[in-house]
Amino acid sequence: MEIDALRTAHPEHWAKASAIRALTLDAVRAANSGHSGMPMGMADVATVLFEKHMKFDAATPDWADRDRFILSAGHGSMLVYALLHLTGDVQFPIEEIRNFRQWGARTAGHPENFLADAIETTTGPLGQGIANSVGFAMAEEMLRAQFGKKVVDHHTYVIAGDGCLMEGVSQEAITLAGRHQLSKLVVFWDNNGITIDGNVELSDNTDQVMRFKSAGWHVQEIDGHDPEAIDAAITAAKRAGKPSMIACKTHIALGHAAQDTSKGHGALTDADQLAAAKAAYGWKFGPFEIPADVKSAWEAIGSRGAADRAEWLDRFGELSERKQAEFTRRMAGEVPNKLASTVRALKKQLSEVQPKVATRKASEMALEVINPHLPETIGGSADLTGSNNTRTHDLGIFDIDNRKGRFVHWGIREHGMASAMNGMALHGGIKPYSGTFMCFTDYARPAMRLSALMKVAPVYVMTHDSIGLGEDGPTHQPVEHLAMLRATPNMFVFRPADAVETAESWELALSQTSTPSVLSLTRQNLPTVRTEHKTRNLSAQGAYVLADATTKRQAILLATGSEVEIALAARALLEKDGIGTRVVSMPCFELFEAQDATYRRKVLPAGAVRVAIEAGIRQGWDQWLLGERGRDTKAGFIGMTGFGASAPAETLYEKFGITAEAVVEKVKSLL
Amino acid sequence: MEIDALRTAHPEHWAKASAIRALTLDAVRAANSGHSGMPMGMADVATVLFEKHMKFDAATPDWADRDRFILSAGHGSMLVYALLHLTGDVQFPIEEIRNFRQWGARTAGHPENFLADAIETTTGPLGQGIANSVGFAMAEEMLRAQFGKKVVDHHTYVIAGDGCLMEGVSQEAITLAGRHQLSKLVVFWDNNGITIDGNVELSDNTDQVMRFKSAGWHVQEIDGHDPEAIDAAITAAKRAGKPSMIACKTHIALGHAAQDTSKGHGALTDADQLAAAKAAYGWKFGPFEIPADVKSAWEAIGSRGAADRAEWLDRFGELSERKQAEFTRRMAGEVPNKLASTVRALKKQLSEVQPKVATRKASEMALEVINPHLPETIGGSADLTGSNNTRTHDLGIFDIDNRKGRFVHWGIREHGMASAMNGMALHGGIKPYSGTFMCFTDYARPAMRLSALMKVAPVYVMTHDSIGLGEDGPTHQPVEHLAMLRATPNMFVFRPADAVETAESWELALSQTSTPSVLSLTRQNLPTVRTEHKTRNLSAQGAYVLADATTKRQAILLATGSEVEIALAARALLEKDGIGTRVVSMPCFELFEAQDATYRRKVLPAGAVRVAIEAGIRQGWDQWLLGERGRDTKAGFIGMTGFGASAPAETLYEKFGITAEAVVEKVKSLL
Repeated sequence: MEIDALRTAHPEHWAKASAIRALTLDAVRAANSGHSGMPMGMADVATVLFEKHMKFDAATPDWADRDRFILSAGHGSMLVYALLHLTGDVQFPIEEIRNFRQWGARTAGHPENFLADAIETTTGPLGQGIANSVGFAMAEEMLRAQFGKKVVDHHTYVIAGDGCLMEGVSQEAITLAGRHQLSKLVVFWDNNGITIDGNVELSDNTDQVMRFKSAGWHVQEIDGHDPEAIDAAITAAKRAGKPSMIACKTHIALGHAAQDTSKGHGALTDADQLAAAKAAYGWKFGPFEIPADVKSAWEAIGSRGAADRAEWLDRFGELSERKQAEFTRRMAGEVPNKLASTVRALKKQLSEVQPKVATRKASEMALEVINPHLPETIGGSADLTGSNNTRTHDLGIFDIDNRKGRFVHWGIREHGMASAMNGMALHGGIKPYSGTFMCFTDYARPAMRLSALMKVAPVYVMTHDSIGLGEDGPTHQPVEHLAMLRATPNMFVFRPADAVETAESWELALSQTSTPSVLSLTRQNLPTVRTEHKTRNLSAQGAYVLADATTKRQAILLATGSEVEIALAARALLEKDGIGTRVVSMPCFELFEAQDATYRRKVLPAGAVRVAIEAGIRQGWDQWLLGERGRDTKAGFIGMTGFGASAPAETLYEKFGITAEAVVEKVKSLL
Repeated sequence: MEIDALRTAHPEHWAKASAIRALTLDAVRAANSGHSGMPMGMADVATVLFEKHMKFDAATPDWADRDRFILSAGHGSMLVYALLHLTGDVQFPIEEIRNFRQWGARTAGHPENFLADAIETTTGPLGQGIANSVGFAMAEEMLRAQFGKKVVDHHTYVIAGDGCLMEGVSQEAITLAGRHQLSKLVVFWDNNGITIDGNVELSDNTDQVMRFKSAGWHVQEIDGHDPEAIDAAITAAKRAGKPSMIACKTHIALGHAAQDTSKGHGALTDADQLAAAKAAYGWKFGPFEIPADVKSAWEAIGSRGAADRAEWLDRFGELSERKQAEFTRRMAGEVPNKLASTVRALKKQLSEVQPKVATRKASEMALEVINPHLPETIGGSADLTGSNNTRTHDLGIFDIDNRKGRFVHWGIREHGMASAMNGMALHGGIKPYSGTFMCFTDYARPAMRLSALMKVAPVYVMTHDSIGLGEDGPTHQPVEHLAMLRATPNMFVFRPADAVETAESWELALSQTSTPSVLSLTRQNLPTVRTEHKTRNLSAQGAYVLADATTKRQAILLATGSEVEIALAARALLEKDGIGTRVVSMPCFELFEAQDATYRRKVLPAGAVRVAIEAGIRQGWDQWLLGERGRDTKAGFIGMTGFGASAPAETLYEKFGITAEAVVEKVKSLL
């Protein structure tokens, strides 16, 4: 690589790009950990992008109409941190760079959206950034259609590596972007030919250009170190009228002894090699030292957008006051007051009519009344629209010629769907909810974990939530999934027992701003168990007494979802036998856990045997069954111990012993 | 669609294909559930494949050198069941077809490999079959290289639908197959243009032909109802020298009123429409009735392979006795006796040398001595070879010109890797193990669940198993993953505390034939805690007393993996304060659960406070902490309650309070 030629051809560009490389080398050496090669390889692309194209104002990193920059190859986090420091983001003083990867620093090992305003998303698990970006770009299209391009008109730029493109989720993302012609999405492929194990060819020889074309993308191939070529390619990409991929041929760890090797991917900490690299760049400055002229050139880039933003503010001020308030409300993620009153009215009606419907159907009933009042909701389904019941009458279909459409046909892409939902939620202004079968949370899992970690609040509508789905059999029957979801920190898992609890769960899920929710819904019909209307949202406490013992309390039955019906039937049998029995419905463990000890003890007092009933495995129940201090009570569990089977639902409940009679027998054996 | 033209052009073919369609219609109607359209659309392809190409002997469905037929579009299960019934597989008499989707039937909603010999894999979760098939085809290449093409020489045929191709895992599978030029893999794409939500174009407009070409595949496009075109395409595919995709333009639910509609995807049960479809086929027979001439034509196809198999037996008999025994042993999945003695010798050495190594390194040490004795092991890594330590010196790299290579560079494809491992295990003769970071079990999850459900025994080597990985931060730090894996039925989760337990875990994992294992291994170094050599595999009991109280037992510390060291340090402090403390190492919950109550009580007697220590969440621990009947003891847990953070490992243990001091404090607070 002729570093000298690069230096002399574009000296000002070179100095700016060298600052990124130098900071990367210094920070990784200080941390003795991290990934040097990727920021060094992509410094030229990033420099041109930020200098010539990115619409942003470093002083206001949360400006709603900024371009979004997503580092899908999140291990190269120093690229983002260097850019933010150099452009003058006050959250990234040089101390943050010095503290790279240390406790309490904003400069975490991988970019974490919740540590700084300018970090758009959390990346590191490969492929997620590029898949998030589809949601970002969709959100931009939707908001532009709703609020006009005077206030919403920005691009989403992504840097993706070979790892991102090998992950299957990238295919789901690429084909979604192609299908919807997301023309404001520009992906830079860091085509450095290197992965951790060695040359890419060791494991892959995909023709990426052909692959992106097969998905309907505009594609260019450039030298990723040539600033003029980079600039021209970005200009062309923005005009392409389609999502655009720019294949940037780069050298990983450019100018370092480890250039073009897999060693260059990791932490380059050797002092002599570091010095040699800096010398090759013509970089004569000490560790973490940026000369004033270079810093001020970068800061000029950081403040370039201030004027754009001022103009934007003027345009924003031209909107009607109502529209301004609506935009502000939506970007803040606040739900309208109307949500609560709408749900209350629905609950009242449901308690009176007492429908016997599947909770997936009850979910649709709730959405039918909620969606008209929450224009920020975007629904969808991974090709199970008629099963997940996530499409309501007023949504319209999001499509190339209908960007106001609020329902997305995600196709058979659970993972891409969840990751795009994260992107929408991160973008702001949108509350995404979408569905698939509960068992296929498995497919969406990497993105669902990131929802929780990133503190965003999409709603996952997971229907067909147990053996109750019947004949489709064990591949489709969740058994361990409730436990898995409950195991995930910062995630609300709602398993409503009837239409009333379903409405309450929706209210709670949509009211969250930093916790994702999963709605676990049945395929099969369930009776209304909340036959007495309560204004208060009882599900908000996570668990409550649904039916109490009429004589001395000897047993407490705990249940969720479809098994609440069984608990009530068991209670009737037990009470007939003189055994006072309380039924506790537990729609959300996490919310119950968040209550104070007094309330929890009131719902689950000591001195009665406890039996939990859930058509899943026991794991996770012991905290409620065995008592919070482990000596409260005798307890039992009626549920699954292994995988399900293919047969009609009633047969399965019978064969797996999840029946009122089994509950009665269990209670009696414990008394 | 001119059904009449098809009928008259190839009447004998038509009668055979009609039998599939008629059985499908009858079975779905009887079950009032299922998917009619796919078998009806692909009946012609399946008929030609089975009649002209498939090497199989219906009387011996477990013949080792049979061609493998994989229905990736598993919802079309009636296609498989019809084929097996028609060709005379004794496990599929007409009663099985009549009992489609009923309790106890082999004809489950989706094909389940463990219900019948001829069902190669369990499909239904889309994309899995095509991803499994890569493992099948790799296994065939490997075994052919090892045993010669006289005994191993067969094809893998796959039927995949649009759903399979939209799932991201299919991209991982396709690019792997292309990279390795798996020339005996033939995929039929059921290009019917329909998904559940409607036309494919609603959600996807990928040019699949270009996409497969970009991955290095041979591609053809045919009319999927033209038997001559199908035959010619299969012939060409077999000669292509690359994996081959045949795009079959078909009509879903051919000949039915629901043809070419999304309604046709599901259960077609209307009696009049069913009668009309049969009439259009010229099928004059009652429900489940197959005329003798059609049945005997099909049975001739089923017995055609008997001669092939006889010749194969002759060739097999020409192998040396040693080689025959080896092949038979490997296809039976039995491990050589040498495994136990090798592990014993290693354990003895480790107890003496007492290395302080990460368990990922200890895992490599175990594999180094095991692999030479188990030629059936195939190792690999999802581009983390140097981190997962799964490659040993003698393996060689599996590649186009080295099919004897036993290490696979999977690339950044955790999901495709796991699914291919399932395929290898299902094929037989191979024991696959491969690694990634524990956190990325999330990506592999859909396939890992299927390992458990399918009762196959790959070994997942999951390194970097806690906050102990340090600076990479919360995106890479498992917190809930041990709980999630333990929640999965039929899965062994090993978390060894040192090099000795790691060796024991490997012995146990490799000895399984119907349970997958996960090895949860550290990045960070751990001391040897098993300093006294025991011949017996103590990990086989799941948990055991590692160090007992020297005075009256007041506390029991339970720990796994890297936290056993902390438990031992806490014990030392407690004993110094006169608090008799036992340490129980629990490398495998599932195996401990399988012990009798006497043993479990011996390890965890009542009457002492219990504190568990694990750098993950508490879920799953309560069964051991609170006592199996919930009234044994006071208990506490030292571990994580939320996500991790980016910082050096020691800092994280300190900040999150997972220290010996915290354990001591917890014990004292409980006493």
